[in-house]
Amino acid sequence: MSTVNHQFRLASRPVGVPDRSVWNYTEEEIGEPMDGEVLVKVLYISLDPAMRGWMDEGKSYVPPVGIGDVMRALGVGKIVASKFPGLAAGDYVGGIFGVQEYATVPGKAVDKIDAPLEKLPVFLGGLGMPGMTAYFGLLDVGKPESGNIVVVSGAAGAVGSVVGQIAKIKGCTVVGIAGGTEKCNYLTELGFDLAIDYKTQNVSAALRQHCPKGIDVFFDNVGGDILDAALANLAMRARIVICGAISQYNSTTPIKGPSNYLSLLVNRASMTGMLVVDFMSRATEFRASMWPWIQQGKIKTREHIVDGLNTFPETLLMLFNGTNDGKLMIKVAGD
Amino acid sequence: MSTVNHQFRLASRPVGVPDRSVWNYTEEEIGEPMDGEVLVKVLYISLDPAMRGWMDEGKSYVPPVGIGDVMRALGVGKIVASKFPGLAAGDYVGGIFGVQEYATVPGKAVDKIDAPLEKLPVFLGGLGMPGMTAYFGLLDVGKPESGNIVVVSGAAGAVGSVVGQIAKIKGCTVVGIAGGTEKCNYLTELGFDLAIDYKTQNVSAALRQHCPKGIDVFFDNVGGDILDAALANLAMRARIVICGAISQYNSTTPIKGPSNYLSLLVNRASMTGMLVVDFMSRATEFRASMWPWIQQGKIKTREHIVDGLNTFPETLLMLFNGTNDGKLMIKVAGD
Repeated sequence: MSTVNHQFRLASRPVGVPDRSVWNYTEEEIGEPMDGEVLVKVLYISLDPAMRGWMDEGKSYVPPVGIGDVMRALGVGKIVASKFPGLAAGDYVGGIFGVQEYATVPGKAVDKIDAPLEKLPVFLGGLGMPGMTAYFGLLDVGKPESGNIVVVSGAAGAVGSVVGQIAKIKGCTVVGIAGGTEKCNYLTELGFDLAIDYKTQNVSAALRQHCPKGIDVFFDNVGGDILDAALANLAMRARIVICGAISQYNSTTPIKGPSNYLSLLVNRASMTGMLVVDFMSRATEFRASMWPWIQQGKIKTREHIVDGLNTFPETLLMLFNGTNDGKLMIKVAGD
Repeated sequence: MSTVNHQFRLASRPVGVPDRSVWNYTEEEIGEPMDGEVLVKVLYISLDPAMRGWMDEGKSYVPPVGIGDVMRALGVGKIVASKFPGLAAGDYVGGIFGVQEYATVPGKAVDKIDAPLEKLPVFLGGLGMPGMTAYFGLLDVGKPESGNIVVVSGAAGAVGSVVGQIAKIKGCTVVGIAGGTEKCNYLTELGFDLAIDYKTQNVSAALRQHCPKGIDVFFDNVGGDILDAALANLAMRARIVICGAISQYNSTTPIKGPSNYLSLLVNRASMTGMLVVDFMSRATEFRASMWPWIQQGKIKTREHIVDGLNTFPETLLMLFNGTNDGKLMIKVAGD
């Protein structure tokens, strides 16, 4: 085993798109875990839109990553040394390991994963935070009923693709909004009833045409003009789930608020924010539904795996220019 | 009794603030009511912010007022002729009578008012649509709990003043936002815990200072910058009731969407539109609470009564420049 750990640390707060200059690539000796800790060799790092928010100063649902700190990231890895009862070297685990090769973390802060190596990426996607976000955001906040029209933005992404597939399982008509032919074809393969390509279509006009009775549930990962297009096409008592706003995360001007928000008034509709962290205590319930769905092929997941920790600054940007196909992650090391 | 009826009819769709040029003042013979109808002498006409929306083309919760049509308005009046069983000449009634001196309407579309002449204005205010909007908007949509921080915009208005007083009855701490010293003093007289003058104070800073734990319920009649200020100061799981957006109704540029809407995400908060028309079937429940509150002096109402139908175009504008003190109405005629 290596004795050196490489890391990406936040060098400065980005303005707009975070290029390589905001990162420091550092190395340090790997220490021994203390009592209660485990040392994890990181195998895959999850890249998520929320990371952009963690880089900004200011009050949010978690503290910002400090300047000089290792960038926060979810990951899966393998324990190489354990001083925590119940976890042993060789165990696969998931947790907040950061953008680095080795992480020393409290044993109680990691989840043991009982799955073979080749399944680990799914634990960062459909069976991980994105899947859980989709599951509770749609079912608990969006409250779809059979026969409802469910529209999802960022539909080819890790969260959106699962939202749409769960909505199909629940008997809804599902429209996905994504950018580009390839992604739209993917949505159709997943069983979405319709895919709208925001790069070539007028989203509001397409929604008006294909959802003439209006949208019952809009699950928004994108914000900006697409949120406004959905607002313009709501059904009565529609529910909008605000899960994210990736179109706005790198904005250097004030965030574009939804001009059509008074559609909430006319349609007695609601817009509710959700964060998956509130649902961690229900992880068992989530897995009890999701794992069989994945195994039975009712829910398909796709991972976009980029090789090498050092690609992190550029790989992260794929989320914001939409060039990833499926759940984006970095493979840091083999077993 | 006069044989002539005067009316304000919509001559053209306004752009921005509706001045007198968008109205035609017309006169016509008063007809006889047909079977099932009543002829009402209009005594008071209610002027409400929602009227501005009714003047615009486009899909909304009610059809727009047609060009050439008598302007839609709620009113109270006295029946002068009835061909509807159960209503007789001399009865006081409320209904959608329009901006005119006499209205011929179906008897089933009016509500009989069992109150003396001097109480009629209250049936356009605290006991009418504004009171009902306040009651159901706050209690059913905002769902305040004892000890909550409730903030109301347009707080000196017909809806806002009642919202704040109901919130006090329910054990909340209540902050009102209004324009000008006189209105803010009025809020304090009504028992509001604090009044913020948006004309002289930074609303967001004042909310941050006085509601350090954040806002639990925000009842919004105003929209624009004040909605953004409230969004910037939400407590976890806050509920925003979107009742109106008077700051935006005469806008000739696109509506200002709330830039801070991602505060809904961070705080797992919701923003829900409400329209009083959905609660008409619960009018009895409303009156059973509100009438005693008003009689016991727990809820005070104030009417701003302008004399003369012909003042309608200018009186309407008082709503938008904020110069009315209390529920705005026009006295059309004596008994």
